[in-house]
Amino acid sequence: MRDGPQGPGGRASRSRRRGEPAKGRASRRRRRGEPAKRAARVIFHDVYTNVPPEEIERFVRSQELGRLVTVAADGTPHLGLYPFTYDGAAFEIHLVRSDEQIADLGVRPRCMFEVDEVLATIPSYWVDPENAIMATAYHRTVMFDCEATVSGDAAELAAQQMRLLARYQPEGGFRPVTPDDPLYHGAIHHITAVRLDVRSRRAKFKLAQNRPLDARAKIVDELRKRGRPNDERAAAALTWTIEQEAKR
Amino acid sequence: MRDGPQGPGGRASRSRRRGEPAKGRASRRRRRGEPAKRAARVIFHDVYTNVPPEEIERFVRSQELGRLVTVAADGTPHLGLYPFTYDGAAFEIHLVRSDEQIADLGVRPRCMFEVDEVLATIPSYWVDPENAIMATAYHRTVMFDCEATVSGDAAELAAQQMRLLARYQPEGGFRPVTPDDPLYHGAIHHITAVRLDVRSRRAKFKLAQNRPLDARAKIVDELRKRGRPNDERAAAALTWTIEQEAKR
Repeated sequence: MRDGPQGPGGRASRSRRRGEPAKGRASRRRRRGEPAKRAARVIFHDVYTNVPPEEIERFVRSQELGRLVTVAADGTPHLGLYPFTYDGAAFEIHLVRSDEQIADLGVRPRCMFEVDEVLATIPSYWVDPENAIMATAYHRTVMFDCEATVSGDAAELAAQQMRLLARYQPEGGFRPVTPDDPLYHGAIHHITAVRLDVRSRRAKFKLAQNRPLDARAKIVDELRKRGRPNDERAAAALTWTIEQEAKR
Repeated sequence: MRDGPQGPGGRASRSRRRGEPAKGRASRRRRRGEPAKRAARVIFHDVYTNVPPEEIERFVRSQELGRLVTVAADGTPHLGLYPFTYDGAAFEIHLVRSDEQIADLGVRPRCMFEVDEVLATIPSYWVDPENAIMATAYHRTVMFDCEATVSGDAAELAAQQMRLLARYQPEGGFRPVTPDDPLYHGAIHHITAVRLDVRSRRAKFKLAQNRPLDARAKIVDELRKRGRPNDERAAAALTWTIEQEAKR
């Protein structure tokens, strides 16, 4: 099993698509004494991170829960899953006041908010009859480096609940949340509103972009034949990468 | 929307099931001058964390990818999704050598390995006609506090690849991974084996255990009627909690 870049495969395929021999442009660059076009950053390798911003936004908004990752004073990481709103600049979530992650944010407001979708693991022989290293996993992951602001203000909490409900329950079917309604008094004093201002973002869409288009098409076929619960979704995600290359 | 414990609901329903008036056993305990049975730990409230160990094991082994959470020297958290093996005492994953998470583990071998399954968000009116706070989210999450050991040894890497393949590709269809096979030489020198020894574990199965059995049964019906992609899985998970209480 191999997680990460797959050597020259992705580049070579792109060169071939443009009618050049494999590695032609890279070796020409070397002959000219130019540095490699981009420094190798392995986990966030270009082939997986070069995702159009509008697709990242679409994906983030399609996710029902996100993961807040905080770090305690002693360096221990903590994680929790939360429903969220997102406006492109900040996330909003709420936690129970006594939650350890609220204590973490009091010490260290810098944190991560992450959304991901596990799509599939595939056997190596879908790609190569012998090479086990071709076994891999597909997923979409976006990580936001955030600065948290925590508020226990009742009016702010009620307003935040209304924004969360507007996302998850737009059809209504509830009494508006206000700070003074006795129905909500207890709950509001039990929770804390957290606003996560986004400082930067990294996406990793690991969707076989390192494989030539015909290999990807074959994987799509195999996923559809196998038909595990997420395989159709994985096939659609790989097909999206094929369509993206056709647009370039 | 409310994430967290829901007050006395869960306890009361359990007492009622045993033919006692709501809160009967708790108040009897108070009359006898005994402390509450367990201290309140909010995010890991008993009602969500009291999951049989064999069910936690089953869930962890059913997941295809897990999340490694590491903390950099400057306190920044990092996260990556990986295929894994798990033997009940340790996880095994592999990363690219130059990955920032390998640098993190060099500084701070303590880390988290997490698996989760997002099941559903539900509207409040499935539970109450007025109270918006009843809107919630269901998920299963298990977090492992781990100590990492990193190895770049070729023989160890090859052996680890074989263990990963035994899990994900038991049907074979590849040439055995050995440190000397030229087919694998490059890849093996590109990756690092990580072993994560489990020090402790916390589970949060948030599956409406805070609701009386009849309310849970109604949510199960509504999930099946709604029929989003994960709703059947969510309905099965809530049904499991109903069956668990019947066993007690």
